[in-house]
Amino acid sequence: MDMHDLTRELLVKNDSKIVMLVADGLGGLPLTPGGKTELETARTPNLDELARVGISGGSIPVKPGITPGSGPGHLGLFGYDPLEYRIGRGALEATGIGFELTSRDVAARGNFCTLDAQGDISDRRAGRISSDESAPLAVRLREVKIPGVEIFVEPVKEHRFVVVFRGEGLEGNVHDTDPQITGVPPLKPKAMDAGSQRTAQIAAEFVAQGDKLLSGEKKANGLTLRGFSGKPNLPTYEEVYGLKAAAIAVYPMYKGLARLVGMQIVGKAQTLQEQIDVLKQNWQDFDFFFIHFKYTDSTGEDGAFESKVKRIEELDAVIPQITALDPTVLIVTGDHSTPSLLKSHSWHPVPTVLVSKDCRTDRCTSFGENEATHGGLGLFEAKYLMPIALANAARLGKYGA
Amino acid sequence: MDMHDLTRELLVKNDSKIVMLVADGLGGLPLTPGGKTELETARTPNLDELARVGISGGSIPVKPGITPGSGPGHLGLFGYDPLEYRIGRGALEATGIGFELTSRDVAARGNFCTLDAQGDISDRRAGRISSDESAPLAVRLREVKIPGVEIFVEPVKEHRFVVVFRGEGLEGNVHDTDPQITGVPPLKPKAMDAGSQRTAQIAAEFVAQGDKLLSGEKKANGLTLRGFSGKPNLPTYEEVYGLKAAAIAVYPMYKGLARLVGMQIVGKAQTLQEQIDVLKQNWQDFDFFFIHFKYTDSTGEDGAFESKVKRIEELDAVIPQITALDPTVLIVTGDHSTPSLLKSHSWHPVPTVLVSKDCRTDRCTSFGENEATHGGLGLFEAKYLMPIALANAARLGKYGA
Repeated sequence: MDMHDLTRELLVKNDSKIVMLVADGLGGLPLTPGGKTELETARTPNLDELARVGISGGSIPVKPGITPGSGPGHLGLFGYDPLEYRIGRGALEATGIGFELTSRDVAARGNFCTLDAQGDISDRRAGRISSDESAPLAVRLREVKIPGVEIFVEPVKEHRFVVVFRGEGLEGNVHDTDPQITGVPPLKPKAMDAGSQRTAQIAAEFVAQGDKLLSGEKKANGLTLRGFSGKPNLPTYEEVYGLKAAAIAVYPMYKGLARLVGMQIVGKAQTLQEQIDVLKQNWQDFDFFFIHFKYTDSTGEDGAFESKVKRIEELDAVIPQITALDPTVLIVTGDHSTPSLLKSHSWHPVPTVLVSKDCRTDRCTSFGENEATHGGLGLFEAKYLMPIALANAARLGKYGA
Repeated sequence: MDMHDLTRELLVKNDSKIVMLVADGLGGLPLTPGGKTELETARTPNLDELARVGISGGSIPVKPGITPGSGPGHLGLFGYDPLEYRIGRGALEATGIGFELTSRDVAARGNFCTLDAQGDISDRRAGRISSDESAPLAVRLREVKIPGVEIFVEPVKEHRFVVVFRGEGLEGNVHDTDPQITGVPPLKPKAMDAGSQRTAQIAAEFVAQGDKLLSGEKKANGLTLRGFSGKPNLPTYEEVYGLKAAAIAVYPMYKGLARLVGMQIVGKAQTLQEQIDVLKQNWQDFDFFFIHFKYTDSTGEDGAFESKVKRIEELDAVIPQITALDPTVLIVTGDHSTPSLLKSHSWHPVPTVLVSKDCRTDRCTSFGENEATHGGLGLFEAKYLMPIALANAARLGKYGA
């Protein structure tokens, strides 16, 4: 039995407000053994106060030892088992650039490549062509015309682009055309099941016309397609939790992920203060607010310990504006850890604090990795955070008599 | 989705070294309420130092409250869900005496029994016949000849022996012949599915010829067969983790369990110091080392609290020789608890410590049951220890984009 079967069965509606503030890549590591993490180093009087009055824990994004990408990391926090719900690479790439997929779409990630005189791939990434050079080529691919199908091509970074085929009866189970090695031609798009045959034919026609359009190029005279996938079929927040949910994010990827679970994207904030302003403006209109703060992750990825500390302090500073709204439940967490020591996402549990009137406060007095591990929530899988939030908002009835 | 599906998908190869030191039955209990366990009583400066620089936790071998045998205990530590992978009694018994099963084998555990004049069982264990008396009888059973099948009979302790049938098309789904009560004859071997019919016929013929060979005996004039099972079909360490793994064990059971997951048995060590020497000699040739220390379990089984304390101190004394090799990840744990108070395996979580550069040290300052429970790994199922070890060795890539 899936947690959503439970939440659907038990959901209760009321006027409570839940705020989930996600500091991307929040968890960290000390630079030297026995030292303090970024979060433990930062001066965070407001987060510490949340830890004092709330309940803390360590969130395991997927399973112990597993480092998630942004997709599984957020699905976990949203309460969708990230091992059950997988977002294909094409769909995630489309989502990441803010492309709004429909149920009639199949998306694929495209790579420009270099083909030699025999049509064999000599460079799978077209000499790591710059975005400036590749973007006009992606736009040129929009000239491909296939009857009965609408085609969207969007530039991504460097050798990458996204293609979306929209039409009736398209399914995404088509094998990658990138052979993963050089010295051989791209593979033909091959349907892996009967329902995907039309997509494979369309993809083959797209490649044929695309190759012609690119034939005069020196570096990017060919293309491969990977990760064919339709719109992920995720139930909505409204359906599984009875929540009208708003997402307040700056970057397209996180807006896209929120949209996939039926959240409404509100505002056009570019800064954290603008995000808080959007929260205030929309306070009466939603039950649940997802606020995404990117910079704890990007500074971690850069290996910039001190910058990450400063970003955490920036986050800390807006907390009183959120608590002033008197949310029924306030959660501060992250989708995964991004220790600046590792310059990458990691598997380490993410410090998490939840504040509500009925949360059963623990002994934590500050917000940090070590302290959270000793908190009342213990170590828990991220997918359980939403049921805990709903319970604290009195939005879940009793299971069984 | 199984953890091995994840580790297969995400595995990365590198030059890291992982050492898993398993102190069998490590966990214990105080002799008097509020007292110290064996591990807490032992003077363990080296293990305490590992706890100080590493991350501790309590390993739950199978599920909370479940006491495992050696098979499930080790499978869990090796990352094989002990509820998914079950080793039949016959196969485990064969493994335990160092018999190397092949995919053409079906093994069964044999018991000598006493039959009365009517052929009914009067004693299911042949009067608990001594090993000295029973071993020659097991050897005598090797005279059984069945066309097309190779038969191996090996003595075990007291009334027990192992029989292995080797041939084509043998499957192990055959019902036990031990009726579990006296006053009735042994059951006929009965195939529980079509594929096991040949095995059942062979077993019936083995019993018939065996009974003749034993007919002159007073106590052990009959036999029963239990736990028919083929070689367990376990994926290998190489396949699921990309690890070339070595096992350094003294006792056949643990060598056998390691062999079942594709580890290579190295050395012929008889003492702990010899095991450490084998570790040093093979350091360059493997990615993963499983070292098995038996005596924390056997002293626990004996109810010898002080002896178990001494064995733990013996283990502690070799730790510096392991850390001197500078393993990327060093784990000290146990396959289950064996409190000398209980003189048996138990369900209690097993103190576990993991040391690596990126482990995120917790506040533990000594190695013991109570301290470990408050460690950064918290309470965790043993099957997650391998993914955590791989993550700490930078051997797992990111899940999802």
